[in-house]
Amino acid sequence: MNEESPVIRYHQAKRGKIEVIPKTPLDTAEHLSLAYTPGVAEICRVIANEPETAQILTNRSNTVAIVTDGSAILGLGNIGPTAGLPVMEGKSMIFKKMADIDAVPLCIDTQDTEEIIRFCKQIEPTFGGINLEDIAAPRCFEILDRLEKELTIPVFHDDQDGTAIVVLAGLTNAAKLRKTPLEEMSVVINGAGAAGIAIARLLNYRGVGDIILADSKGIVESSRTDLNPYKLDVAEMTNPRRLSGSLDDALRGADAFIGVSVRDILSEDHIRSMADRPIIFAMANPDPEILPESAKKAGAFIVGTGRSDYPNQINNALVFPGIFRALLDSRLKQSAYSISANLMGVKLAAAEAIASVVVPTRERLLPSVMDPSVVKTIYDALRS
Amino acid sequence: MNEESPVIRYHQAKRGKIEVIPKTPLDTAEHLSLAYTPGVAEICRVIANEPETAQILTNRSNTVAIVTDGSAILGLGNIGPTAGLPVMEGKSMIFKKMADIDAVPLCIDTQDTEEIIRFCKQIEPTFGGINLEDIAAPRCFEILDRLEKELTIPVFHDDQDGTAIVVLAGLTNAAKLRKTPLEEMSVVINGAGAAGIAIARLLNYRGVGDIILADSKGIVESSRTDLNPYKLDVAEMTNPRRLSGSLDDALRGADAFIGVSVRDILSEDHIRSMADRPIIFAMANPDPEILPESAKKAGAFIVGTGRSDYPNQINNALVFPGIFRALLDSRLKQSAYSISANLMGVKLAAAEAIASVVVPTRERLLPSVMDPSVVKTIYDALRS
Repeated sequence: MNEESPVIRYHQAKRGKIEVIPKTPLDTAEHLSLAYTPGVAEICRVIANEPETAQILTNRSNTVAIVTDGSAILGLGNIGPTAGLPVMEGKSMIFKKMADIDAVPLCIDTQDTEEIIRFCKQIEPTFGGINLEDIAAPRCFEILDRLEKELTIPVFHDDQDGTAIVVLAGLTNAAKLRKTPLEEMSVVINGAGAAGIAIARLLNYRGVGDIILADSKGIVESSRTDLNPYKLDVAEMTNPRRLSGSLDDALRGADAFIGVSVRDILSEDHIRSMADRPIIFAMANPDPEILPESAKKAGAFIVGTGRSDYPNQINNALVFPGIFRALLDSRLKQSAYSISANLMGVKLAAAEAIASVVVPTRERLLPSVMDPSVVKTIYDALRS
Repeated sequence: MNEESPVIRYHQAKRGKIEVIPKTPLDTAEHLSLAYTPGVAEICRVIANEPETAQILTNRSNTVAIVTDGSAILGLGNIGPTAGLPVMEGKSMIFKKMADIDAVPLCIDTQDTEEIIRFCKQIEPTFGGINLEDIAAPRCFEILDRLEKELTIPVFHDDQDGTAIVVLAGLTNAAKLRKTPLEEMSVVINGAGAAGIAIARLLNYRGVGDIILADSKGIVESSRTDLNPYKLDVAEMTNPRRLSGSLDDALRGADAFIGVSVRDILSEDHIRSMADRPIIFAMANPDPEILPESAKKAGAFIVGTGRSDYPNQINNALVFPGIFRALLDSRLKQSAYSISANLMGVKLAAAEAIASVVVPTRERLLPSVMDPSVVKTIYDALRS
């Protein structure tokens, strides 16, 4: 551990990044008798009789659990739940700062699908929503599908839906700048985990012309015998030219590359093999598939990464605060929530809302994660 | 729901009582790249390689989970997890206010012993300690015993240990005022749930002369055939006169009554049947076994309740902030924590520390829950 590193110093200064504080006064014996015994018993009885009152008498309706099993932390892989905690604390900060949502990291010591589902169901009485995070594919698909059916609170897997939404937002603005309609664009997605599959599904729903998904073994296509059902499903809905082969084959002549894979996998030669003025989203975290300076040198028209320290950050931090603000408030004001994170139409609306916040340029494709109008724009789009 | 009630207004004002906020700055893109991607990856890698660094690079070491199944909320009974949430938010406030600990309510949707144990083990990577709360007996005993063996972080069942410690603190000061050594005192404990059994065990360890435990069927004694193993164990270590019969029989001539049972169960006649100048701790929440004014009228020498709105509050809120501050810091500074909440000696030391904070009077038997020196005194006693 390098004690001089600014990142280490930032995290060590207060031992972590979040805290849990009272939001009502607790200074006198009278406050204590309101907040705790005997007064609190009245609140317990009211909720026991009318469970919906918990929405206004407790913090439940503003609280989100960030649940991870530590199996796919950033691009670092299966480093375990405690090593994933710093990411979840960072997300919690962004939730609060951008959307005034109270988010609790729950990095759990199991990587069993059924146990993760059971865990999320057990915590339902305490939370207004669940943000699944950094759970490896393919287990994350079954977990999300099951929880969408079995929970009464909204659930959102940020690595799937959040990433897909922000990629579509970025691609929408890149298409405008390149003057290529999405319907005519050819896109290669590299990485067929949670994010890659969700991106392929959403771009396909949006009607993007030619989508190819690739994994570490090459193009995901129906004749391969090593595909899980989720990849097979995507293979059947994409790849209209029925290409097979390697990433090299996929990239030849493509308009756009979307990387949700591993560092350094994209070379300058790859970019030169693509169509003129290609769009490059190199989103592996923390180290992208190609560094922006190299991509530019090889002729990229627009380059985005997942990072805060380059222009064009394409990061799901643009998505989750606004989506959850809308989901929680929707639930709050109605007896059942009217926005399902599962609906493609909702995802499309969120992507278009994010894209609409800026007049895009090649160096400012999307709004900043810190731009407060992003949450409001998503919120208004989803509530209308 | 009575909208005019001060308690309702207090809880409704901000929809609940706690929030989760950043404790490090998040105002600029640079902050974002330290707290989140790409910077945070460095922290993840350090923790993955040296897990102990999570103690100083995340908030884990200052975070406590308040876990309940909603089965024994205050004296209200099995009202379920969501109805228990207001109590847990109140505890979280006290944790932060008194001991700067970040406490997260987790009111869970299961009342199965094995599932509760499994849940607590699953959350271990995220928390520095676990405060079990308002879980019904006898399941709470097995849960605590098992978790003390199976977790590497401290676990404390407040209704058992917290209540026992604060009762011993109160009884210690009451004994001084009444000039009766604890060794010669006869004490009747009414209520043989989590609290009653833990109180009996700790008073017995302290050497209190004559302890009788009673439940809804009367005196807990070895010849009864309806006792669970925990009650049987207490029956064998207490009741030296081998009394049997009702609460009335137990109370005749007793020096002290400790109620952890239900409202209104103690009558003025009961008090008149006790020894001269009896000590009455009527701790059922929110409504005590007898109202203080009635107890006084019947001749009680000292009266305590669990409530904040009468003198002599005998409430485990005097215990848990200081105990956890010591447990967390002990863990922080050593590779394994040196204080076990399970040790009788530790409980005794905590009780004596609380008792020592005030020069007791009949109207001020113990310090106020809001007295900041309580945490410090417990902390020093346990760390020395």
